Amino acid sequence: MTVNLRNFFNPKIKSSKMGEFQELMPIEGMEASAVSADLYGDGRDDLVLFYFQEGANFAAVYTTSKVTSASINWNLKIKRHFVKAIMVNTQNANTFTGIKGAQGLKEIATTLAKNLTLKSSQAAKGTSEVVKITDLLFASTGVIGEEFPYTKIKNTVPELVKKLKIEQNKFMWFKLANAITTTDTKPKLAYEECKIGNKLIKISGIAKGSGMIAPNMATMLSFIFTDANIPAVFLKAILKKVTATTFNSITVDGDTSTNDMVSIFATGKAKNSKIYNVLDPKLKDFEKALHRLCLNLAKQIVSDGEGAKKFITINVIGARSEAMAKNVAFSIANSPLFKTAVAGEDPNWGRILMAAGKSGENIIANKIKVKIGNYLVAEQSMASKDYKESDIKEYMTSDSIDVEVDLGLGSGNYTVYTCDFTKDYIDINTDYRS
Amino acid sequence: MTVNLRNFFNPKIKSSKMGEFQELMPIEGMEASAVSADLYGDGRDDLVLFYFQEGANFAAVYTTSKVTSASINWNLKIKRHFVKAIMVNTQNANTFTGIKGAQGLKEIATTLAKNLTLKSSQAAKGTSEVVKITDLLFASTGVIGEEFPYTKIKNTVPELVKKLKIEQNKFMWFKLANAITTTDTKPKLAYEECKIGNKLIKISGIAKGSGMIAPNMATMLSFIFTDANIPAVFLKAILKKVTATTFNSITVDGDTSTNDMVSIFATGKAKNSKIYNVLDPKLKDFEKALHRLCLNLAKQIVSDGEGAKKFITINVIGARSEAMAKNVAFSIANSPLFKTAVAGEDPNWGRILMAAGKSGENIIANKIKVKIGNYLVAEQSMASKDYKESDIKEYMTSDSIDVEVDLGLGSGNYTVYTCDFTKDYIDINTDYRS
Repeated sequence: MTVNLRNFFNPKIKSSKMGEFQELMPIEGMEASAVSADLYGDGRDDLVLFYFQEGANFAAVYTTSKVTSASINWNLKIKRHFVKAIMVNTQNANTFTGIKGAQGLKEIATTLAKNLTLKSSQAAKGTSEVVKITDLLFASTGVIGEEFPYTKIKNTVPELVKKLKIEQNKFMWFKLANAITTTDTKPKLAYEECKIGNKLIKISGIAKGSGMIAPNMATMLSFIFTDANIPAVFLKAILKKVTATTFNSITVDGDTSTNDMVSIFATGKAKNSKIYNVLDPKLKDFEKALHRLCLNLAKQIVSDGEGAKKFITINVIGARSEAMAKNVAFSIANSPLFKTAVAGEDPNWGRILMAAGKSGENIIANKIKVKIGNYLVAEQSMASKDYKESDIKEYMTSDSIDVEVDLGLGSGNYTVYTCDFTKDYIDINTDYRS
Repeated sequence: MTVNLRNFFNPKIKSSKMGEFQELMPIEGMEASAVSADLYGDGRDDLVLFYFQEGANFAAVYTTSKVTSASINWNLKIKRHFVKAIMVNTQNANTFTGIKGAQGLKEIATTLAKNLTLKSSQAAKGTSEVVKITDLLFASTGVIGEEFPYTKIKNTVPELVKKLKIEQNKFMWFKLANAITTTDTKPKLAYEECKIGNKLIKISGIAKGSGMIAPNMATMLSFIFTDANIPAVFLKAILKKVTATTFNSITVDGDTSTNDMVSIFATGKAKNSKIYNVLDPKLKDFEKALHRLCLNLAKQIVSDGEGAKKFITINVIGARSEAMAKNVAFSIANSPLFKTAVAGEDPNWGRILMAAGKSGENIIANKIKVKIGNYLVAEQSMASKDYKESDIKEYMTSDSIDVEVDLGLGSGNYTVYTCDFTKDYIDINTDYRS
């Protein structure tokens, strides 16, 4: 089924078919909406709100950049781990927007708190609850350094709150995932289920990201929702562990956004038995499900990397430590020469060794074995005896390329996912902002 | 004067005019030659020999890569600092060529030593001197991992030795500088003079390099010759100091070659008074001249960066240390998003801040001031009050772009030179090797 979504769709997303994506389930205890504040001037959705009627335990990991957006700064000041809502805007990163950007955000927060309090009082028939600005979180993605359009956003908040819906059907998740995109050519959605004790737990997640920071726009963002009942401190520990080998193991261009954020919200509505310990074996299944979901979203981001034509998996094994394996893997994954060779379908394995060599790690050339797909291409400091370029040339035409580098030094390993480096990347990124 | 050099020229070098380059002077005590071993199959020069009749004090700095070529490995084993000759081949990097590559190089060295001994005995009329293989150095640049064509090279050594010439006129330097190129579109030459005491000292240098490692080919190489009389240990100290802010402050794509080498040879024929101390004030002028020469060659390499259309200078000031300034400067200089913005003539200063932010250095956003050319574009975490995009857009059309980032934290500073990132880079590097 191809849906005509023109009226609210990011025009860069071409004919996405809902059928291509997993069907996401509604998360009890949550309402969501997406509307347009006309920040792009074409009426596409650019504001998204997730509201938790009775609050949600919350954990997040943020960009490691020292230049961060006003929304990241806001979230870092929220010391509680139980929140009522998170609002996302696209088109403007609210980064390097000075005191005005921070003040604008505060005005939006005040308006949002007021409107949510009103909604809550209408719903609660008497026992209304006041939503404070410290119950709210924010995420922004878009151009850095341009004036933050806070008036437009503030004026759209009442409509955003009014449109909140409890039922998040397939179509609604698709609309939400679309509304947070910038240069993405596809929305990113994933769903997992697991059990905590005997309770079925749902996890629905969406993400956006195309360059690590996109041309005008920016950012890798992911929002994950679950009905599990897990304390925020344990959510944080699990999220941190899971992102280390999922969102943190992808790279498009080695550039890091000022606005990156991966967050998880747990409404507790699944009513699973209480968790007192992060090592509780009941959490194992949840951690695995969350890992699958994050890896799925992370791979969707890389596949949609700016200009990407090929998905690349780089598996470094036999390192002295995981940290060493990670450094070598990223050194290869971020090498423009390796990535352009893949784009050119050239099994130029010398560039893999060049990139491993420059990693700064103390590797030993004649212990390294390099495989492209199932073909051993180099060992003992030379091309492998069975190396037949014609076979590998054929393999290089695939959409998905696997590279394995065995350092032959120990048992540390790490896998990085990336994409090739094409002329389209340059096209997208040399394009003037206006 | 445009010379028709077709018969020996790298065909990638288009109509270079000798008049564009500095005129290099002959260095007394040295002979040089360039011939073709037909490694490219088109008869272009691909072998170069520099021979010092009475030897030369020698110092070099090498790639920091852990995957190094057989020639780098050879040189590292030569413990003496007084050598007789250095031979350079292009087309094949002799890297990841296994034991065969190393053995092939030894065969070449044996043949070269024999031929030079013969030459020396013919010249010396009686008091002939034996040239040993440990008197010889090597440099290679080209494809990694392909079989090293040592037979072809070895068979051409007698011709290479026979063609050695004492007079290095303008034309000869041009021929030598051309013969060491790979994907370069211009040869790189520089000349400086200075005084040590009352003696005039000549310094002639050539270099090659286009990507930090080029598509099929590889490497940044530089060979510098002087008639100064300076002990090798002091040459080494000065060369190391000078490269830190010249060759080590350039980047094309952040990739590091397996074959990089900067070397200096001093014949002592200028007969300046003996130097006993590296801090001898008589060396100051020499150090300055060598710095100018290296910076000149380094800038020529960046200007000829693969696909480069613009030369970029990134000056980071106000850092807590020089190391901090260097990290931030390279983080910007290697950012694909910054480099594509420059290619697109887009004063997208948000990307400068993004790249500074991801450097890992503890910078403080609201202390940073960013200038493009003479225009202050950002300060106090926002666009500067006087920011007028139209002015800067005009400036961005220049061939040479200056960026200054003042971190506002201290007095450390560092300058990096780089080039923009264009579709031509992708074209050159996605091109299949064959």
